[in-house]
Amino acid sequence: MSGLLIVIAGPSGAGKGTIFHSLLERMPNTVASISATTRAPRGKEVDGVEYFFKTKEQFEEMIARDELLEYANVFGNYYGTPKKFVMDGINSGKNIILEIDVVGAEQIKRKFPECVGIFIMPPSFEVLEKRLRGRATDSEESIVRRLSEAKRELSTYKMFDYIVFNDNLSEAIAQTETIIKAERNKISRNESKIEQLLNE
Amino acid sequence: MSGLLIVIAGPSGAGKGTIFHSLLERMPNTVASISATTRAPRGKEVDGVEYFFKTKEQFEEMIARDELLEYANVFGNYYGTPKKFVMDGINSGKNIILEIDVVGAEQIKRKFPECVGIFIMPPSFEVLEKRLRGRATDSEESIVRRLSEAKRELSTYKMFDYIVFNDNLSEAIAQTETIIKAERNKISRNESKIEQLLNE
Repeated sequence: MSGLLIVIAGPSGAGKGTIFHSLLERMPNTVASISATTRAPRGKEVDGVEYFFKTKEQFEEMIARDELLEYANVFGNYYGTPKKFVMDGINSGKNIILEIDVVGAEQIKRKFPECVGIFIMPPSFEVLEKRLRGRATDSEESIVRRLSEAKRELSTYKMFDYIVFNDNLSEAIAQTETIIKAERNKISRNESKIEQLLNE
Repeated sequence: MSGLLIVIAGPSGAGKGTIFHSLLERMPNTVASISATTRAPRGKEVDGVEYFFKTKEQFEEMIARDELLEYANVFGNYYGTPKKFVMDGINSGKNIILEIDVVGAEQIKRKFPECVGIFIMPPSFEVLEKRLRGRATDSEESIVRRLSEAKRELSTYKMFDYIVFNDNLSEAIAQTETIIKAERNKISRNESKIEQLLNE
């Protein structure tokens, strides 16, 4: 059976990074997608491990050839999700998981509707505000901006398949894991197996 | 949050009855649907516990008033699923679970598309045949009939949401439970909560 492409999104402060990393630890056969980027390697970063490092020309060729599930230009550097890495992974039965913003998630959903879109949400905007203030690293202006950003992100909810309210972290991790497991039993993911049984 | 209506179907010999009963034991807040019937109570059966006992006239009135999610006439007796019992349960946050044949499942799916349809399937028709022969209660003719019936049932798979291959019983129970849990995180089941958050 093919693996799944799991797309995790949600506002900053929702805990999606923590959930993402614990899924990678807890779920066997689940690996993180590796992005391509034109930014220079830093420190001990290795090509094909942290990122696929590309020149601007190489990256734009990947765009032209439709070899990316999504991409964005962030402050002059390209970042994107190579289709080949994802498809090779799921075709070999692995789940590929990636954490991304809602704009990237939308691009992926359009190119690969079979992906599982999971939106991680704080229990309320009030709680999110408290969390952002609790960090004490953000200015008032940045908190206000993040909150309105969070609202804008949640408003795209209809393109996602699931929502997890991260009220209690371990519960939110368990729910996300449960979603991924249940997806394997979806009729749409078992059609070829069923048709094979029917034709026996 | 509303509960779910969970519809369990699958061929005779797939183990759906066992899965059904263990879900009722394992999942808090999950109760069995109670059917209405025109057959006479047997032994210590109590109205509203094993069945809602109805006269033929009462049952046909329920049909006329569209008060049943599905019904069938089996050897002269009516059996059906009262809509009110199901709706009261899920509106109070309970999961209502019912075990039914594919014809009934199709009626329910048409009247209540939000239900979760789970098809329980043996790992193969070969295994099903072995199981039926293992019972040693069925005649050769009945085994052949049950097998062709099973194939006909599986061929309706597209109306279901999930399929569970019952190769290993405890694994099949766990998968079914996982499906029910994950459904609560579906975007479609959280729209009113999300819209409320967005309008805060």
